[in-house]
Amino acid sequence: MSGAGAHRLVIVGAGFGGLQLALKLGRDKRFAITLLDRRNHHTFQPLLYQAATAILPPSQIAWPIRRLMRGRPSVTTRLGEVIGVDAEAREVRLADGERLAYDSLVLATGVTHAYFGHDDWAPFAPGLKTLEDATAIRGRILMAFERAEAHPRQAEALLTFAIVGAGPTGVELAGAIAELARTHLKDEFRHIDARRARVVLLEAGPRILPSFAEDLAAYALRALHELGVEVRTRSPVTACDAQGVVTDAGRLDAATVIWAAGVQASPAADWLGVAADRVGRVPVLPDLTAPGHPEVFVIGDTAQVPWKAGAVAPGIAPAAKQQGAYVARVLKGRLKDRLNGRPTPPFRYRHQGSLATIGRNRAIIDFGALRLTGFLAWWLWGVAHIYFLIGARSRLAVSLDWLWAYARNEPAARLITGKPK
Amino acid sequence: MSGAGAHRLVIVGAGFGGLQLALKLGRDKRFAITLLDRRNHHTFQPLLYQAATAILPPSQIAWPIRRLMRGRPSVTTRLGEVIGVDAEAREVRLADGERLAYDSLVLATGVTHAYFGHDDWAPFAPGLKTLEDATAIRGRILMAFERAEAHPRQAEALLTFAIVGAGPTGVELAGAIAELARTHLKDEFRHIDARRARVVLLEAGPRILPSFAEDLAAYALRALHELGVEVRTRSPVTACDAQGVVTDAGRLDAATVIWAAGVQASPAADWLGVAADRVGRVPVLPDLTAPGHPEVFVIGDTAQVPWKAGAVAPGIAPAAKQQGAYVARVLKGRLKDRLNGRPTPPFRYRHQGSLATIGRNRAIIDFGALRLTGFLAWWLWGVAHIYFLIGARSRLAVSLDWLWAYARNEPAARLITGKPK
Repeated sequence: MSGAGAHRLVIVGAGFGGLQLALKLGRDKRFAITLLDRRNHHTFQPLLYQAATAILPPSQIAWPIRRLMRGRPSVTTRLGEVIGVDAEAREVRLADGERLAYDSLVLATGVTHAYFGHDDWAPFAPGLKTLEDATAIRGRILMAFERAEAHPRQAEALLTFAIVGAGPTGVELAGAIAELARTHLKDEFRHIDARRARVVLLEAGPRILPSFAEDLAAYALRALHELGVEVRTRSPVTACDAQGVVTDAGRLDAATVIWAAGVQASPAADWLGVAADRVGRVPVLPDLTAPGHPEVFVIGDTAQVPWKAGAVAPGIAPAAKQQGAYVARVLKGRLKDRLNGRPTPPFRYRHQGSLATIGRNRAIIDFGALRLTGFLAWWLWGVAHIYFLIGARSRLAVSLDWLWAYARNEPAARLITGKPK
Repeated sequence: MSGAGAHRLVIVGAGFGGLQLALKLGRDKRFAITLLDRRNHHTFQPLLYQAATAILPPSQIAWPIRRLMRGRPSVTTRLGEVIGVDAEAREVRLADGERLAYDSLVLATGVTHAYFGHDDWAPFAPGLKTLEDATAIRGRILMAFERAEAHPRQAEALLTFAIVGAGPTGVELAGAIAELARTHLKDEFRHIDARRARVVLLEAGPRILPSFAEDLAAYALRALHELGVEVRTRSPVTACDAQGVVTDAGRLDAATVIWAAGVQASPAADWLGVAADRVGRVPVLPDLTAPGHPEVFVIGDTAQVPWKAGAVAPGIAPAAKQQGAYVARVLKGRLKDRLNGRPTPPFRYRHQGSLATIGRNRAIIDFGALRLTGFLAWWLWGVAHIYFLIGARSRLAVSLDWLWAYARNEPAARLITGKPK
């Protein structure tokens, strides 16, 4: 633990940004860090879609935050929910009534899914942001097949899966569900043909994967078609209920609808009383502090961080990690500042590339100059994800699960738990 | 699938007994088998306590029933809940209103935990029978440490774990929680000392592990003491609430109470309209049929099966599996019977031994003549459990997880999910 005179740093959120910051500063005795999160685990969000489609069990894409901080004596891990910030008094307010005083505060609270003013759609079209979301979606998908087997006359609607939003998450979910139906489940039912499941990917915009180059998106579209996924672009959803979704083209009866269309930042802007952008993000200054609050940093998905002309840094793990590492440098620099006064240069996002996978054997990688598709890209994607998984054990376990699933067409975690709707 | 003239066999429950029966008959085209279960997975109950204490993830002790029946063409797997049996019409009634006709019926519906007339204790003292139970108990145990870290002044009650009932499950839970606190969690908190957690094992009877020989139980007691578990025999629980439990010796403040004290059979006896024993089991005839219902078999924990003088077959996996295999022989014999009329001899339970483990490195094995304790028994226990796990993959995965946890003091699944109390 750090001494009484240490700089009190409170980090809210142990996602990629907050965790990176805590890892970087956690051995520095000049800081007394509290790492707060609503959950006891850090979630490796890029693989959440695999947990939602039974490929990996939840325990392989999430780790106890407290465990990750074991070798970081300056960090106190704290399970708790923030409900506000008293910027005047420099205190964070927790749901249990407690207040945590800080010298510096970092808000890395991420985003949740958003229904564009249609919050009543939430129960019919769950989104995918947490382990609980993934487990619930996995239950719904598997339960749809169980119901169809029990009631084969309703199989058509029961085996229609609508995914709303064709960003990377929507594309990856659509590919994985199609694969699950066509490959893993195909021999296990007596009254239905699991291969006949319909997977429909609905996108409001003119094409899938708008954040990727056009030729890569076109490749992904062909790969989706080969997996039997129906892709409908320019198809904004206008209604959603327990029976399916409605678009301009009419009603689509689908027992399972998954929402991958929009996000809304956590209320960090509200807490600070600063202006937010359209999706609730805090437009931060070049040193990632909130306007008017030099001691408060906002990083990750909940920050609007300038990148290149007309664009902001994307809401992906590498961006959050870079921001976490940058804030560590700023905070260290500020302590030194008392001696030599050298300011840290502004944050610059370095884009390392975009990746998305479509079923087994297919992926697209956009490194800017270098673009890859197909089998090689898929293996690279796998290696990259295993590399970034935290902890040697998870790397090994995930590698084994993937190899096994690949060799045997056998996903690792086909469980329905809880009470799937 | 089996032909139209096949013998319609409905098996209710895919635990050890029902599963064994379906595996044995599933390739026999003379049968048209429906294997019904409320869940999509078979649970390896002997390792549930490890899922409840974060040692193994749920996906490693449960497998989709449908997957296990992939190579059994005579079996249709069906997710569904039975609410009654119309023995007259030979139909099983499902919660969704459907009826399934049978020529033979096997009820293998198991037990649930029982509170001896105090069902109001259930929310405060969850029992351990399903994966959901295990996940919820895991969440409660881990959450108690999180709460204590946030509120160290309440640490004493928050870090007191009361386990009610000192059969194998209670003993194994107590040992695993003590180990979790003393070994795995000890370096991860800043405001509490996880090693100071109190684990109290309460038993109404005069000694722990009444189903084991006295010297083995005495060894287990010493092993529990060495782990720091407080064992209180002759201490029936007289009250239970959110703050803890009450025994004759007074109140024990314990934020976490786990119920491992009693079981109650599922309502198979009610469904059939036959008399039940004290815990709701159906006293079956020597061929495991229910009295007055030669076409209805009751097996596993929900059957009262004679064994040796004054004793009935114990509610353990090997007993259920032997009964499942026996019913397969009876049913095959009955089909042959039309030709040669040779009846199957009565069921005889062959006791293979009892095992229980106490933390790491300690176990007791009671083979009757041969009794083992200590490190060797613990390894044998591990080998036996891995051997009986279904599927090469789980065997490999569980072996790796155990070896890893053993080598690194690092449990595999320390996640709090859902909304733990």
